[in-house]
Amino acid sequence: MENRDERIGNTSSDPQLVNRHGSKKSNEVQEEENHQADQLSVEQTFESQRVPSWQEQLTLRAFVVGLLLSTLFSFIVMKLNLTTGIIPSLNVSAGLLGFFFVKTWTKFLEKTGGFGSYLFGMSETVAKQATDFNDPHNIKNPHIGWMIGFLFVVSFIGLFSVVPLRKIMIVDFKLTYPSGTATALLINSFHTPTGAKLAKKQVKTLGKFFSFSFLWGFFQWFFTGGDDCGFQSFPTFGLQAYANRFYFDFSATYVGVGMISPYIINVSVLVGGILSWGIMWFIGNKKGDWYSEKLSASSLHGLQGYRVFIAIAMILGDGLYNFVKVLSRTIISFSKETRNKRNEVLPVVEGNSTAIAPLSYDDERRTHMFLKDQIPTWFAVGGYVIIAIISIVILPHIFQPLKWYYILIIYIFAPIRGFCNAYGCGLTDWSLASTYGKLAIFTIGAWAGAAHGGVLAGLAACGVMMNIVSTASDLSQDFKTGYLTLSSPRSMFVSQVIGTAMGCVISPCVFWIFYSAFPDLGQHGSQYPAPYALVYRSMATLGVEGFSSLPKHCLQLCYVFFAASIIINGIRDSVNKKWSQYIPLPMAMAIPFYIGSYFAIDMCIGSLIIFVWQKLNKTRADAFGPAVASGLICGDGIWTLPSSMLALAKVTPPICMKFLSSSTNAKVDAFLGS
Amino acid sequence: MENRDERIGNTSSDPQLVNRHGSKKSNEVQEEENHQADQLSVEQTFESQRVPSWQEQLTLRAFVVGLLLSTLFSFIVMKLNLTTGIIPSLNVSAGLLGFFFVKTWTKFLEKTGGFGSYLFGMSETVAKQATDFNDPHNIKNPHIGWMIGFLFVVSFIGLFSVVPLRKIMIVDFKLTYPSGTATALLINSFHTPTGAKLAKKQVKTLGKFFSFSFLWGFFQWFFTGGDDCGFQSFPTFGLQAYANRFYFDFSATYVGVGMISPYIINVSVLVGGILSWGIMWFIGNKKGDWYSEKLSASSLHGLQGYRVFIAIAMILGDGLYNFVKVLSRTIISFSKETRNKRNEVLPVVEGNSTAIAPLSYDDERRTHMFLKDQIPTWFAVGGYVIIAIISIVILPHIFQPLKWYYILIIYIFAPIRGFCNAYGCGLTDWSLASTYGKLAIFTIGAWAGAAHGGVLAGLAACGVMMNIVSTASDLSQDFKTGYLTLSSPRSMFVSQVIGTAMGCVISPCVFWIFYSAFPDLGQHGSQYPAPYALVYRSMATLGVEGFSSLPKHCLQLCYVFFAASIIINGIRDSVNKKWSQYIPLPMAMAIPFYIGSYFAIDMCIGSLIIFVWQKLNKTRADAFGPAVASGLICGDGIWTLPSSMLALAKVTPPICMKFLSSSTNAKVDAFLGS
Repeated sequence: MENRDERIGNTSSDPQLVNRHGSKKSNEVQEEENHQADQLSVEQTFESQRVPSWQEQLTLRAFVVGLLLSTLFSFIVMKLNLTTGIIPSLNVSAGLLGFFFVKTWTKFLEKTGGFGSYLFGMSETVAKQATDFNDPHNIKNPHIGWMIGFLFVVSFIGLFSVVPLRKIMIVDFKLTYPSGTATALLINSFHTPTGAKLAKKQVKTLGKFFSFSFLWGFFQWFFTGGDDCGFQSFPTFGLQAYANRFYFDFSATYVGVGMISPYIINVSVLVGGILSWGIMWFIGNKKGDWYSEKLSASSLHGLQGYRVFIAIAMILGDGLYNFVKVLSRTIISFSKETRNKRNEVLPVVEGNSTAIAPLSYDDERRTHMFLKDQIPTWFAVGGYVIIAIISIVILPHIFQPLKWYYILIIYIFAPIRGFCNAYGCGLTDWSLASTYGKLAIFTIGAWAGAAHGGVLAGLAACGVMMNIVSTASDLSQDFKTGYLTLSSPRSMFVSQVIGTAMGCVISPCVFWIFYSAFPDLGQHGSQYPAPYALVYRSMATLGVEGFSSLPKHCLQLCYVFFAASIIINGIRDSVNKKWSQYIPLPMAMAIPFYIGSYFAIDMCIGSLIIFVWQKLNKTRADAFGPAVASGLICGDGIWTLPSSMLALAKVTPPICMKFLSSSTNAKVDAFLGS
Repeated sequence: MENRDERIGNTSSDPQLVNRHGSKKSNEVQEEENHQADQLSVEQTFESQRVPSWQEQLTLRAFVVGLLLSTLFSFIVMKLNLTTGIIPSLNVSAGLLGFFFVKTWTKFLEKTGGFGSYLFGMSETVAKQATDFNDPHNIKNPHIGWMIGFLFVVSFIGLFSVVPLRKIMIVDFKLTYPSGTATALLINSFHTPTGAKLAKKQVKTLGKFFSFSFLWGFFQWFFTGGDDCGFQSFPTFGLQAYANRFYFDFSATYVGVGMISPYIINVSVLVGGILSWGIMWFIGNKKGDWYSEKLSASSLHGLQGYRVFIAIAMILGDGLYNFVKVLSRTIISFSKETRNKRNEVLPVVEGNSTAIAPLSYDDERRTHMFLKDQIPTWFAVGGYVIIAIISIVILPHIFQPLKWYYILIIYIFAPIRGFCNAYGCGLTDWSLASTYGKLAIFTIGAWAGAAHGGVLAGLAACGVMMNIVSTASDLSQDFKTGYLTLSSPRSMFVSQVIGTAMGCVISPCVFWIFYSAFPDLGQHGSQYPAPYALVYRSMATLGVEGFSSLPKHCLQLCYVFFAASIIINGIRDSVNKKWSQYIPLPMAMAIPFYIGSYFAIDMCIGSLIIFVWQKLNKTRADAFGPAVASGLICGDGIWTLPSSMLALAKVTPPICMKFLSSSTNAKVDAFLGS
C-alpha cells in the first residue's frame, strides 16, 4: 500500500543493512532466540499452549486497539510523508506499542504513502509549481470523498491477488522475508519471560521519550507565531548556512529517524545535501544564461527544475538498477526452485535438494497451522475479478482521463507483477512497488497524451498499480510473520480486510486534517513541502511531454546523475562489503536535492547519538536505541494531531521566535521604537 | 575580602546546611576519611613523608598556577557578582582545579566582591539610578588606577591583624571552621590513592561540563546581536511571564549554582521572586496614588524604590538577627573558654575540661608543625601600625569626603571586630563582614553628612571595614586548613601576601575589562545589573538622609519586611530541624525583589537535576554533582573572557534571536517586506 522505495530505510538491498534497519533490536532478539534454540526450539517452548482457532484470534479488542494505533501511526507516517517522504521502518515501535496494549500482533495498513506522492501530485498546489499542464484536465484537488472512494476501489484487489501465492511463497519456496521474520521474532520474544521483561523496559523507555518528544513539540509550538519563526527556522550554523538550508531544526522526529536508520543512509543524505548545494550554487551562477532571471523561485523552468529533475534522474537510475537486479535474481532463483520442484515429483530423491530435507519440529508445526484454515482459490479469483470490474466501472468516473481500458490492462498484468514483487521481496526484502508505479506513470501518461489529461491519468494509474503490487509484497511479509507466530491465515485475511477498510477511511481523514489545517501544505520551503508530490507530478509531465520541458543543460545533467546512480549502485554491489559500507546510496542522496539538508543534519545527529551511546554501552544502546528513537518519532508525530487541531481552530501561537541579522534587527528595533 | 553574606551559599547559619553547601563532596570525602581513620589516622598514613620546610612549600610553579587560577576565578566571580550577587562556594571546583594543576593547595584571594557592591555603588551609573545625591561630591567613577591603589592600601592590614589570633583560634580554642576543615579534608583526600582516583574522575567530569558550558556560551553568543536578543531573553513561559521576569534564561552558570546550593536556598529565591512579583503588582496598581506616574521606571522614588528598599529591609533584618545571634554565641563560648583557660593554670586538674584531654597523634603532629615557624608578634603589630598610618595618609586623597579621623577610628576598633568575626566564623562558619560594612556605611555616612559627601564616605568606609573584618575570618579559615594539612604558617603568610598583591591587581583589571566591554553595566534590566551596587548606595543614602527619601508607605512596608525577616529567622532556629528545613531564608528571598526571578528558575532547575540524579543514583550524584556544577559555572564564566574581548573589539554577534508577539511579528514582517 505504500510506495516502498520512498521508505528510505528499505532502500538498501544489502541484507545486512536491511536487517540492521528492519529493527536493530531484532538482531538482539534473534541472538536471544538462537540462544534459546540451543535448549529448546521456539515451538517446543510454546508447545503446551493451545493455539486459538481463527475466530478466537479475531477479538473486538484487537480491532479497537488496531483502530487506535493505526490512527496514531497514520499521523506519524503522514507527517513524515509530507515533510521529507523518508519513512523509517516503525516495526519496533508498532510492535512495542502493540505488545503494550494487547500483547498480540496488530496489523497496520498505512495507506498514507500515496498522499505524499501521486495523490497530492494531482492537486492544484503542486500543479502550479510544476508550471506546465496546470489546466483543469490535469488537476484533481484532494477531497475526502473521492479519496475514500478511490482507496476502497483499489485497495482490496491486492488482498485477493496475494492469497493464491501464499502457500507457494512461504511453504514451498521458504522465502526469508527478512522484515516479516524480524517482526515475528519480535512478537515471539515478547511471549518469552525474558523477552517480556525486556519489552516492558523498552516500552517504559519508549513512553518516556514519547512524552519528552510530545512536550518538546508542544513547547516549540508556542514560538511559531508567524512565517520562518520558531525552532524549525533556527539558523544553527549561521544565517548564510540557513539560507542554503543547512541548519539543525531541533526536530525530534528526524533525530529519531536518524537513530534507527543505518549510518550510511544518514551520511548519504548529508552527502547528497552538500553535493546538491554545490551544484545548485554552480547553476545559480548561470542565472540569466541557463535560465531566465524573471522566473519565480519555485518555477520548474528555473533553478527548481534542476533540483527536481536531477533528483528524479537519481531516483529513476536507482530504481532501474534495482529493478533489473531484483528481477534477475527473482528469475534465476525462481527457475532453480521450479526445477527443484519438478525433480521432487520424480521418485528419484536428490540428496542435495533442500526441499527434501526433513522438516524440523518448528517447521512441521508451523506448516500444519498455516495450512489448516485454507482460503479457497475460487474465492480469491472470484474476488479479484469482481473488484476489477467494479474498479473499471468506477475509476473513470473519478478520474476522467483514466479510460476503462487502461485499468483493464493494468489489472491483467498486475498479478504477474505482484507475484514478481512478492517473490523478489521475499528474497531481498526490497519492494519494487514504486518502480512499477513510475512505470505506470510513464506508460499510461504517454498513452493518454497531454491533450487528454495524460498527467492526471498517469498519476492515477500509478496509484492503482502501486496499490496492487505493494499489497502483494506487504501481505506476503505478513503471511511470513503469521506463519512464524502460528496465526491462522484465515484470521489474518479477515483482519487484513478489516484493517484495509479502516485504512481507507482513516488515512484520507488524517490527510484531510493536515490539508485543512496547514494551508501552505505542499509549498516549497514550507513546514510540509510534500517533496514527492512535485517529483511524481514532474515525472508524469516528463512522460507526457518528454524532455522538451527541461531547462537548458538539465537533460545532460540528468543523464550524468542517472548514470552515476546506476554506477554507484553497481560499485556498491561488486566491491567487498568492507568497502561497500562506505559508498553512499544514490536513492538517499536524491531527496535533499529538492528540500535541502536540514533533515540530513537532524538524522546525522541521531546517528551521532547512537554512535556515542554504542561506544559507551553497546548492549544498552542496541536494546534501547530503537525504543528511544520510536518514542521521539511517535511523540513528535502525535503532537501534529493537537497542533493541526489548533491550526484548524485558528489559534495562532502567541510568540514568534525570529532570527534577524544584526543590521536588520537594528532597523526593526528602530521601527518598533517609533 | 568579600562581603561574605552576599555569598548566599554561606547565609545559612545552620551548620548542616553550610556543610551540605560548603561542598557536598566534602561529606562523602569525610565519610571516606572517617572510614580510613578506623584503620589509620590521617597523619599516620602520611607519617613516612617528610613535610617540606616553609621555603620549599613556596614554589614558583605554585604562584604561576595561583596567578592563572585566580585570574580565571576572578572572571567567574566577577560575572556572578555583576549578574545577581549570589556567589556559591567554589571550594570544590577551585580545589579540583588546584589538584589537577599542582596537587597542592592554592590560595585564591578574590577581591572582586566589592566591585559588585560598594565600589561600583560610588559610580555615576548607579548614582543616576539612585536619583538623590548624584552630585560630584558623592560620585567616584571606577578607574583602574585608584582602584588598585585603594585595594593595596586596605587589603594588607587584615593580614597583620589576624596573625596574633592564629594560635588562639586554632590551637587553644580548637574552633571548627567548617569550610576550612572541609577544604583540608578535600586536600588530604586528594593525596590518598582512592581519593586521587575519585578526584581524577571528578576532574574529567568537570572538564567535560566545562567544555560543554563554554561551547554553549559560545553558541548563545551568536544569537545576541541586539538588545533583548538571544537565549538570555527566552520567554520560556510566555511573553507575559517574561515581562514579569519569569523565564528560564538557559544560563549554565545559574543552573550550576543551583546544583551546589541547598534546595532551601533555591526554593527561597523562587519564593522571594513570586512574593516580590505579587507585591510589585499590588504596588504597581497604586501608581499615581502612592507614587508619581511621571517617574522613570528606574527612579528610586517610584516602583524601583519599593523594590530596592524592601530588599534592603530584608537584608538588614537578616543581618541584625544573625549579628545578635553570632555575637551572643561568640561571647558565651568565649567567656566559657577563658574560664576554662584560667582553670587550666591552676594545679588542680578538672576531669571535665576538654583542654586537658590528651592530644591525639594527629593533633600533636599538626600542632607541632603549626607552631614550628612562628611569626613574631612585634612583626604583626608593627606591620599593622605602619599600614594603618599609610592608609590614613593616602585614603583621604582618594576619597575626599573620607576624613583621616574616620579611618583612625575604624582602625582602632577594627582588631576587636576582626577578632569577634574570626571567632564567630570558627564557631558557625558565618562571617559578619558585610554586616560590619553596613554598620560603617550608616555610621560614617551619617557622621560625614549629606553636604560633605556622606554617601561616598559611607561607601568607602564600608570598603575599609569589610576588608579588615573579612580578612580576619577568611584567613582564620585558611589557617585551619593549613593546620590540618601540615602547612607552615610562615609559608602561608608569605603566600597570602603574594596572593593579596596579585588580587589587588587582577581584580580591578578584570572589573575594568567588564566595565569597558559592557557599557550598560549596572543598568537595571541589563545583562549585568550589579544589583548590590544600587542596594549599597541606597543604604548609604538612607544613612545620610534618613527615611525622608522613601516613597509613600514604603517605610511601613520596610518595617514589615524587616520584622518578618527577623521573625522567620527566629522560627527557623527555634523549631525542630524537621520543620526548619522547609522555612525559606529571608536573605535569599531579598535578591529577586530587585532583579526578578529568572535566575531563581535556573537555580531551581539545577536543584531539580540534582534531585532527579540523586533519585536515580545517589552515590554518583553526590560524588559527581559538584564537579558537574563546577564545570557548568566555570565554563560559562570563562566564556565571559572571550565574550568581553569580542565586545571590546566591537564585534557584534551576527544574529539576533528575537521574540515578538504574533501581532508585532505581523507588523515587522510587513515592514521588512516593504
